[in-house]
Amino acid sequence: MTTATTESTPPTTGCRAYDTLIIKLREAAVLGSVQANVSWDQETMMPPSGAGLRADQLSALSGMIHEMVTSEEVGELLGEAEGDAMLRDDELAQANLREIRRDYDQRTKLPLELVREIARTSSLGMDAWKEARKARDFSKFEPWLQKTVDLSRRKAECLGVPADGEMYDALLDQFEPGVTTAMTHELFKPLRDFTVDLLAKLRETTNEFKELPNADVPGIETDPVAQKEWCRYVLAAMGFDFAAGRLDEAAHPFCSGFGPGDTRLTNRYRADGWLDALSGGMHEGGHGLYEQGLRKSEFFGSPLGESVSLGVHESQSRMWENQIGRSRPFWTWCLPIAKKYLGSALDGLEPEMVFRATNLMMPSFIRVESDELTYNLHIMMRFDFERAMLNGDLAVKDLPSEWNKRVKADWRLDVPDDARGCLQDVHWSMGALGYFPTYTFGNIYAAQLWNTMGEKLPDREAMIERGEFKPILDWLRTNVHEPGRRYPARELIERLTGEPVTTEHLRRHLAAKANDVFGA
Amino acid sequence: MTTATTESTPPTTGCRAYDTLIIKLREAAVLGSVQANVSWDQETMMPPSGAGLRADQLSALSGMIHEMVTSEEVGELLGEAEGDAMLRDDELAQANLREIRRDYDQRTKLPLELVREIARTSSLGMDAWKEARKARDFSKFEPWLQKTVDLSRRKAECLGVPADGEMYDALLDQFEPGVTTAMTHELFKPLRDFTVDLLAKLRETTNEFKELPNADVPGIETDPVAQKEWCRYVLAAMGFDFAAGRLDEAAHPFCSGFGPGDTRLTNRYRADGWLDALSGGMHEGGHGLYEQGLRKSEFFGSPLGESVSLGVHESQSRMWENQIGRSRPFWTWCLPIAKKYLGSALDGLEPEMVFRATNLMMPSFIRVESDELTYNLHIMMRFDFERAMLNGDLAVKDLPSEWNKRVKADWRLDVPDDARGCLQDVHWSMGALGYFPTYTFGNIYAAQLWNTMGEKLPDREAMIERGEFKPILDWLRTNVHEPGRRYPARELIERLTGEPVTTEHLRRHLAAKANDVFGA
Repeated sequence: MTTATTESTPPTTGCRAYDTLIIKLREAAVLGSVQANVSWDQETMMPPSGAGLRADQLSALSGMIHEMVTSEEVGELLGEAEGDAMLRDDELAQANLREIRRDYDQRTKLPLELVREIARTSSLGMDAWKEARKARDFSKFEPWLQKTVDLSRRKAECLGVPADGEMYDALLDQFEPGVTTAMTHELFKPLRDFTVDLLAKLRETTNEFKELPNADVPGIETDPVAQKEWCRYVLAAMGFDFAAGRLDEAAHPFCSGFGPGDTRLTNRYRADGWLDALSGGMHEGGHGLYEQGLRKSEFFGSPLGESVSLGVHESQSRMWENQIGRSRPFWTWCLPIAKKYLGSALDGLEPEMVFRATNLMMPSFIRVESDELTYNLHIMMRFDFERAMLNGDLAVKDLPSEWNKRVKADWRLDVPDDARGCLQDVHWSMGALGYFPTYTFGNIYAAQLWNTMGEKLPDREAMIERGEFKPILDWLRTNVHEPGRRYPARELIERLTGEPVTTEHLRRHLAAKANDVFGA
Repeated sequence: MTTATTESTPPTTGCRAYDTLIIKLREAAVLGSVQANVSWDQETMMPPSGAGLRADQLSALSGMIHEMVTSEEVGELLGEAEGDAMLRDDELAQANLREIRRDYDQRTKLPLELVREIARTSSLGMDAWKEARKARDFSKFEPWLQKTVDLSRRKAECLGVPADGEMYDALLDQFEPGVTTAMTHELFKPLRDFTVDLLAKLRETTNEFKELPNADVPGIETDPVAQKEWCRYVLAAMGFDFAAGRLDEAAHPFCSGFGPGDTRLTNRYRADGWLDALSGGMHEGGHGLYEQGLRKSEFFGSPLGESVSLGVHESQSRMWENQIGRSRPFWTWCLPIAKKYLGSALDGLEPEMVFRATNLMMPSFIRVESDELTYNLHIMMRFDFERAMLNGDLAVKDLPSEWNKRVKADWRLDVPDDARGCLQDVHWSMGALGYFPTYTFGNIYAAQLWNTMGEKLPDREAMIERGEFKPILDWLRTNVHEPGRRYPARELIERLTGEPVTTEHLRRHLAAKANDVFGA
């Protein structure tokens, strides 16, 4: 009779208000983990006719959770704990209180009816999006996107638009706390210029991308079932604990950390996409390692047990996907394993060929399948369109044509249909406007963290070549995962790297790759 | 934007109290469907380390649902609706009110703390049971069973033990409303005598079960993955709607109807168990058809949209499993399909051989894999032991030895280990004492309903031979599924069959089979 439940483990301080507050938030988190489970189920398991019921479930749960975390009792306990002298020198409790205050103040600004409406619209909208994407027809999704934009505006207004800012600031701050639209624009600008310049240079070097080395390697056909087993092997090697997690399939891969002991990854597999499968798997695996590395058994429901920002979350996934999974030493280790799982189709491949094949820098329609360089252009486009839709500078109905124009201008590509255009991402169907920039923040942070980690682990390349990922994971565990929300994201990056947030390391990383692979 | 949610469809009467009550109960049902989903997930998907969190989730949900359905507001609305003259001639509303009253009076007798404790113990107990079964070691499960017995006693006392009855009455009534321990004993007695007699006769006819016809057929080895696809084909032919349901794997097969549009079946597959796989699949499919046949889009959350009793639920599963799936005409249709899915291992089999092989009447250790005849002996043993444990006549620690003694006496078998003995069933780990008798009630009802249906569908055998199950399903839909809880279970059976509940048809059915297959 020793099986632990989450309720058995909250650490106590002796301050009644604080300890009670923590228990209340843990109760809400238990319900939040239920919500995560049924959301995961919707994406991986739910039969189509279950959509209506699911919307009601998610609406009800989000309403209940909202009521729990915004209750007067929580507010009173919080106020009391903040004023308690007993906790003044308890650094962990103070960090927890700072973040609980932030959450409480934000959440109490949102009326219950809006929270429920957003949840219901997200659930039904995702279903409409799936249908629209299947039919390659934006018009089927348009009313849902319109509703999402309208709801996002209401949400932004409730949260409060800063006097010197715009509606987008309120949304962005939900996903990447402390970051403003202006700062984002400021950071993105040099990265965009750099990317456009480098893309132009690559265009020359590769004769309009016709002479990309090993361009046929990613499309080699292999068994999707074997790909999944191969991904599972690599994830286990990375350190993902399958006794406390799963790997399933979903149309749009994601990772969901339900709570202590249960983190779920999803991925997708195509016969002609073995490299996409692995990069998708490693990406979600990076998220999963972060979730598994959070101190949830102690701090479930408290900020100290939660991820600090989506940008930092994304830095973990992108690091495993790019800095590691698209590196030369990685393929020295991984290609023999790939050959074992995927069979004779890979005969004749050398690690160097696959390393180069995973770094084909070229314009492509799909964000999640694009290379490290052009990926950020995808994000910047979404950032601009989201702002414009919110501000009323872009009508929802004009999105497809504007999207296609921008792809033509930035990528010199003609979008063949909406499924490969403005319907490719799940985010807007989920009501998540303001989310996309966190992906590029993830790339920026990943490059900064990777640079710092390199100083501590000088023989990192040799380890990767041997498939020894533990020292890397240990460094991430100690420095990035275990702190949870102890420091705000920007402060965490500064503390770890000794620098403010900067795109310098990302640009250097990309320039070096372009030079290595293409001589550009 | 037309996707329906369950909230959009409650039918209204114009009586404010009644209509509000129905909406309240529907809200609780939405949360109940969430509970069903995470319970299903626990059995099919959850990684082992997720057990602690899951127990907290289920405990929290069951507590919330309990609070919702036992609130003073619900009680007041119910009282008001019961007294409203406007509804006096509304037969459906009156049926609903009768059953809502029953549920409300029962549920308000259970303290919240007990409900949550039972939910937590069930969730953790199931985990302990899995481990104990794996280790074939009852002692690992003993403390959980003791706790379950203790909690069941408290529950029975809260619900109220009838003056002329025993604690078991209170539990049994939860699963099979209106049925008492004495009535159960009364019905079981002649069935037990009949079974023991017939088993003795079979012992002779088959030379101690050594000369069973086609006894090697069930163990023919086939691919488990192909078995699953075959089951899926048969389930679709039965009428199971896969757009509103799923089929997954679980250690202990079950069916869960979450709510409108989402009914999930589970099954298990062993290389040497193709016939077990099909009968398990058809069994759960029978449950699933009942769930899909309930009028949930109108009445979700109301008794009119709910199954009437576990016994009637089981009658649906047993009818598809036994009356249909173990019949001669069924195998005329199904064997060619089996051969298509399962390949050359089945070459040389004739329908008559498989029909006989699915009717091997002989003692066996495992209830869910036993034949139609000895199945009821398994139930009667569990019924006796449950009563004895509740009444204190059997100490939990003595269960394995008593179990093994009884199997020796009734079956003349030596139980090799607890996994094939008293640890084989999931029910006690889930806290479901009083549940087992509903299985034999299911067999009894199935035989009665099958007999009545036969009068309406005289060419039923020819239909089955052609794989035409629609007329059978239609009859069940109209007569058994669609009424929901409009009539109490016993009244439903009497209305449909024109007889009180009786084991006569079941005995006749079993005697005829024994004679047909074994000349006994």
